[in-house]
This record gives sequence, C-alpha cells and structure tokens, in this order.
Amino acid sequence: MTTPFELLKHRSAGDWQRYCEHSFVRELAEGTLPQTAFRHYLKQDYLFLIQFARAWGLAVYKSRDLCEIRQGLEALKAIVDVEMGLHVRYCADWGISETELAGLEESRATLAYTRYVLDAGMSGDLLDLHVALAPCIIGYGEIASWIERQPFTNTTGNPYQDWIEMYAGDEYQELVRSELEWLNRRLSQVDQTRFDRLSVVFRDATRLEADFWQMGLDLA
Amino acid sequence: MTTPFELLKHRSAGDWQRYCEHSFVRELAEGTLPQTAFRHYLKQDYLFLIQFARAWGLAVYKSRDLCEIRQGLEALKAIVDVEMGLHVRYCADWGISETELAGLEESRATLAYTRYVLDAGMSGDLLDLHVALAPCIIGYGEIASWIERQPFTNTTGNPYQDWIEMYAGDEYQELVRSELEWLNRRLSQVDQTRFDRLSVVFRDATRLEADFWQMGLDLA
Amino acid sequence: MTTPFELLKHRSAGDWQRYCEHSFVRELAEGTLPQTAFRHYLKQDYLFLIQFARAWGLAVYKSRDLCEIRQGLEALKAIVDVEMGLHVRYCADWGISETELAGLEESRATLAYTRYVLDAGMSGDLLDLHVALAPCIIGYGEIASWIERQPFTNTTGNPYQDWIEMYAGDEYQELVRSELEWLNRRLSQVDQTRFDRLSVVFRDATRLEADFWQMGLDLA
Amino acid sequence: MTTPFELLKHRSAGDWQRYCEHSFVRELAEGTLPQTAFRHYLKQDYLFLIQFARAWGLAVYKSRDLCEIRQGLEALKAIVDVEMGLHVRYCADWGISETELAGLEESRATLAYTRYVLDAGMSGDLLDLHVALAPCIIGYGEIASWIERQPFTNTTGNPYQDWIEMYAGDEYQELVRSELEWLNRRLSQVDQTRFDRLSVVFRDATRLEADFWQMGLDLA
Repeated sequence: MTTPFELLKHRSAGDWQRYCEHSFVRELAEGTLPQTAFRHYLKQDYLFLIQFARAWGLAVYKSRDLCEIRQGLEALKAIVDVEMGLHVRYCADWGISETELAGLEESRATLAYTRYVLDAGMSGDLLDLHVALAPCIIGYGEIASWIERQPFTNTTGNPYQDWIEMYAGDEYQELVRSELEWLNRRLSQVDQTRFDRLSVVFRDATRLEADFWQMGLDLA
Repeated sequence: MTTPFELLKHRSAGDWQRYCEHSFVRELAEGTLPQTAFRHYLKQDYLFLIQFARAWGLAVYKSRDLCEIRQGLEALKAIVDVEMGLHVRYCADWGISETELAGLEESRATLAYTRYVLDAGMSGDLLDLHVALAPCIIGYGEIASWIERQPFTNTTGNPYQDWIEMYAGDEYQELVRSELEWLNRRLSQVDQTRFDRLSVVFRDATRLEADFWQMGLDLA
Repeated sequence: MTTPFELLKHRSAGDWQRYCEHSFVRELAEGTLPQTAFRHYLKQDYLFLIQFARAWGLAVYKSRDLCEIRQGLEALKAIVDVEMGLHVRYCADWGISETELAGLEESRATLAYTRYVLDAGMSGDLLDLHVALAPCIIGYGEIASWIERQPFTNTTGNPYQDWIEMYAGDEYQELVRSELEWLNRRLSQVDQTRFDRLSVVFRDATRLEADFWQMGLDLA
Repeated sequence: MTTPFELLKHRSAGDWQRYCEHSFVRELAEGTLPQTAFRHYLKQDYLFLIQFARAWGLAVYKSRDLCEIRQGLEALKAIVDVEMGLHVRYCADWGISETELAGLEESRATLAYTRYVLDAGMSGDLLDLHVALAPCIIGYGEIASWIERQPFTNTTGNPYQDWIEMYAGDEYQELVRSELEWLNRRLSQVDQTRFDRLSVVFRDATRLEADFWQMGLDLA
C-alpha cells in the first residue's frame, strides 16, 4: 500500500531523485568529492542549523497542545543541545574553527531553503512546516541508506565515512521513522485540495535542498 | 540611578501596584484566600503555561543568533520539562487531577493576557515579547518578595506557603535577576519613540495580568 | 439541511445566544441603552477597527493565491477607506472628536478579542482567521436582523436607529451572505478533528465578543 | 551629507553594483537581451508580484497605527489593483497569456528573494520588511535612471523601451522618493547594532535580487 508520504515523493519523483542522487551525494559516496566542496557544505550547514532551530521554535509556537509542544521541543533540544555541538567538533576535525563559523555569511542556497521553510510554516500550519522540512529530515536518512546500498560506495578510507555513518546509523534512522509516522498520520487526514498544495511545498523544498548540494560543488 | 525597567514600572505605577498588591495577592499572603479561588487560578495557570511555552517557541523563531536561541530554549525547557510537571503535581495536591486539567477551557483572562503577549511578540520583535512577558516573569518575583515583607503575611499554617516560597526562593529570584539584566540592557539601547511604545505594551500586559488575579476571585 | 456554520453555532449555542441577545443589544433595540454606554462602545470600536485592519492584512499575508489576496484586500479597503471614515463621522455626531479617538487607550475587552483573533489567524491558517472573525462579521448581521424582528424594538426616536439600520441594511447583509458562503465552502472541506478545533476558536471568539458588549455596560 | 540609505548601499557597494549593473540590465539597455530571457523574467515577475502583495499584507499586520496601515494599504492597492493588471496586459503584448501565467511554477530565484523578504519582515519589524524590499522598490528606480544615462543605451527601436520608461517615469520615481524619505527617517532613529543587522538584511536581499536577473539569463 502506498503511504501518503510515498505519494508526495511520487508526485515530485524527478526532483526527489535529482536531490537524493545528486553529484554531490555520489561523489561523497565514492569519496571523490573535493574536500573544499565538503568544507563549504559543512560551513553553510552550520548556518542552516541556526535557521533549523528557528523553524522548530516556530513549530512550538504553532502547536495546539502539549503533545505538539513536546515534539517541537525535543527537536529543538536535539539541534541546539546535541547536533550543534557535534557539528562544531566535526567542523574542527575538518580544520574549520568555531571563530570561522561565527563569522560566516549565509550563501544564497542557505537563505533560499531555510526562508522558504520558515514562510511555509508561518503562513501555513504545523503540517506545512513539517512537509517543508521533510526533504531535509527524511531525505538525509534516505540518502545515507541509498549510499550504503550502492556498489560504487567506498567504505575503506572514505573521508566522508563518518558523515555517512551518522545519517545511516540507528539513532538517525529511528528519528526518520518517527517523523515519517507523524507525517503519514497527518497527511492521511487532509483532503485532495490541501494535499495538492502540500505537494507544491514538498516539491519546492526538495528543489531548494538539491540547490544546497549544488552550492557545495559550485563554491569548490 | 533609575534603570530602564524601573522607568517602565514608573510609567504604569498605578497599574503595576494594582497588579502586585491585588486582593488576590493580599488574601494569599494572609492565607484567607478562598481555596476555590486558588483552585480556579491553578487550573487556568496550567492553560497559561501552555501558551507561555508557545511564547518561548516564538522567542526562538524571533532569535537572530545562537545566543538568543539558547535563551529561548532554556526558558522553554524550564516550562515544559520542569514547571509543567511541578504544576501537575501541585494541582494533584490541591485535588485537581491531570484528567481534569486536560479537559479545561481557557477563561477570558487567560485568553486575553496570553494572546496579547503572543501578538505583541509576533508583530514586534524579541524585546516586545520580553516586555509583554515581564509582568508575569518579573512580577511574580516582586510579588513573592513583597508578600514576605508584609506584616499581615501569615507564615504559619498558610495553605499557600508553598506557592509563596517557590517564587520567593533563590532559584526563581535568580531567574528574575537574569531577566531583569537582559531587559535593562536591551531597553537601554532603544530611542524615546520605541520606549514609549514599549511602555504601552508593558501597561497593557500589566492590566491583563491583574485581570488574571481578578478571574480567580470572580470564579470562586 | 444544516450548513457547517449552523453546526458551529449549534456547538456554542449558549454562548452564541448570550452574545447575540446580550443586554447591551436588547437595550439598544429598545433605545434604553445609556448613551454613555454607547459612547464607550463607539470609542473602543474605533480601536477595534484598527486591529481589524491588521487582521485583514494578515489575511493577505496568509493568502495562497491572487483570489484570496483580493478577498483580503477588498475587506481591508472596506475598513480603512470606508468604515473608518463613517465611524469617525458617526462618533462626531455623538460628540466624540477625532482628537479624542486618537488619544484613547484600548480596554481589556478590545485587547482580548482582537489579539485572540490575530493569534488564531497567525498560528492557524486563513480558515482559522475567518472563523475567529465570524462572531463579529456575521454576528453583527444576525444581531441587526434579530433586533428588527423583536416586538420590543423601538423604531421611532430610537437614538441607535442609524446603527441598527446600517447593519440590517442591504449592503451589510450582502457582505454577511458572501462571508457565509465562503465559510460554508471551506468548512465543508475539513475533517472532524479540524472542525472540533475550529469550534473551540468560534466559541472563544464568541465569548470575547460578548465581553465587548459587557464592556460598554460596565464602563457606563 | 550621507543619508542612512546611502550608507546602507555603501556597506554593500559591490553587491549593489553587481545588482544594478547586471548583464541582464546592460543588455536590456542596449536592447540586445534575448527575448526569451525577458519573457522568463516577465513570467517570474508575475509570481513575484503575488508574494510582493503578501509582503504588503504583512506590513499592514505589522502596523502600529492607522498611518502605517494606510501606507501598507496604498502599496497593496498599487500592486493588486494597478500593477497586476498592467503586468498581465504587458505579458500579453509579449505573447504570454493569462492562462500561461496562472499555471507557472516559481523558480528558485523567485522563491529565494520573496521568502527571504517575508521572513525578514515577520521575524523583524516594519523597518526590516522595508529594508528587505528596498533593493526591489528603490533599486528598480535607480536602475532605470542609470540606464537612461548610459551612452550604450538604445532608445530607438529598443524592445524594452516601455519597461525602461515605466520605471524611469515620474510616477515610479515619485514612489521611490517617498519610500526613500520614509526609510531615511526610520533608519536615522536606530542605533549602531540595529543598523549593522539591517545592513545584513539589505546585503542579502540585494544578492537575491541580483540572482533574479541571473535567472532570466540562465533560463533563456
């Protein structure tokens, strides 16, 4: 049986594939991605996390009960109290200091995707916000799993192995499952008109996430 | 020297006093407050906490850097992860079950203050939001300290002693000091026109908080 | 057949009746309402219109297509370009100068209803906003029609005749019909969970509108 | 004497020049711009106008008095009641039907700039919103004037002459002057920290507007 989220992906099948199997992702799997490209990505991903935290703050504001508030808060804690620290340390491993991170300017791709998510969430409701975040939250999980299944994936001495393992790992995959479950429950309650509109949000967000990969390649 | 926050209070001196020294507060200090009034207050305060959490979610959305995001997140954790649990247990001590809490309707006074805060914060910036929250955050600290200094305060067998001690206690007073410091720093940077507008926000919010006490008495 | 809006009213039947047949309304119909009460109402209604304009600005922001934008814009023009001027002139007839209007402070009832509407609309979507506005837009139409049908209504020398005729008149009743049509179309598309939540918004907004009448009596 | 807006431009001098003297603009002045590029631009500009209307709806919501509400409403009427119609007719002259306009998808550059403006305005206040809109409102005026002064500008048989004349014309230039006056008045009231933050908004918005020109060239 097709889940509502699978239907969303099906509606944007071309865009979804271009995002998930982007050259940046393939080269990362092969270990051939230029390290400058990866560093550019890491730096912008730091700025992305800040806007991502704002998006979960918005989710708390948009909540209608304690249960929704708690969902938003857990995501916010995961980003600010955990991921942000891991990201800063990981950046340090790649030679990017916290001082450098603090002085960065947001690239166009970062501005574009993050502000799109924030406006979709603000002008819509909690479901619009989650749908706009899905290419990021669920996409990263699918991408990491996909990488692990590819014959060309280099698992010995791949400089990006840590990144792949983090998103393919149980902890992140569990988060993806939980998000998918929530999304499918909510998406199953909407009528066709609303689903059509959410499909546009999903498609646009997917395209803007693909641009985020492209930015890594372009800046390198 | 007068701090900007003292100036805010001075501008709304009458309203501030009517709020801080409201009959509800005096009777609570004397221990003469009808218990039904206190129970009504406790129940609405539970619904208030939910909207209060939404307000701190909004603060995270309105943040411009990681430092502001962390401030909002800490407040959010304090409410959802700590205060909410304490409140539910305290309500249980007063014979109000979690099931009863879950089925409550928001009173007018709850709707009025909380939505005013949320709109002030949404239409303005982080400083508007904090100023609208100040009668609650800072007011409760001042009220508890004031109660402790009054000759008519009953400290032996006062059924409301726990409530007074919580807000007069070091932990809450430290939170008040920290909020005051932040507010005074930000308020010292605004020009006269903006300060005038913030004074209106502070005055309106103070009046709506006073109505929250009055609601307790009226419903009893 | 019951329309979705009739169902909304049915769910809050008691609150709706208390609002529509409020003493303020009855005395206005009889012409016995103290003129100070009416003047208080008129003054706060001026401040109400300003927030009402903000609510339609929000409706434009929340729009997803040009058709929704135009709907919001027409409402905004009606308020700012037409009603505001009529209101100022009507206030002048009642001895309230534009200078006095400009210096007014918002009463609690004004703050409560208007900010509730704005937060319902901001945290929800366009339908939440319209439902929160319905007690005002549609309610005034029903109230004026109800007044005209009552045996106790005084139509000779009633100082409030102009007010009654404005809202009972064709122009306003046409606006009500158009809003009802939009609401019923949108409400017919939502599922049960969403309808339940919208019922709470409608109930709360109705109560806060009833408080707006009460404010007139209390201040007199 | 340097006005605050000149200072804003000075802070982002390179980005501002890259935007105002973009190849798209130069080729438009020379009349050498590929017509497919111009058509792509026109189509996306239609979608841009819809989001632009939402931004002015937001301005109305963010207003603190009737004067600010009127400013937002006038801009909204200018877009929806005037410009939109002109744009549709102008598109028809270029062979783009209203049906085609209605079925368009937003390009990345359109999503990026418009959502950035909306989030800057929502998370900040009215001044943030105006600063984010300035590269568009004021930039188009400066660009048209600049084009008219260039030796390479083709004024005989330039297919883009209408476009140039519209933005160089008195009506639009008057609108620019009025916006500049408002901006300079407001910018003169902010402190250094706030001005620094507004400079980032102006720089980011300018870059995203330059991308809007680039999109025209890329899609051609």
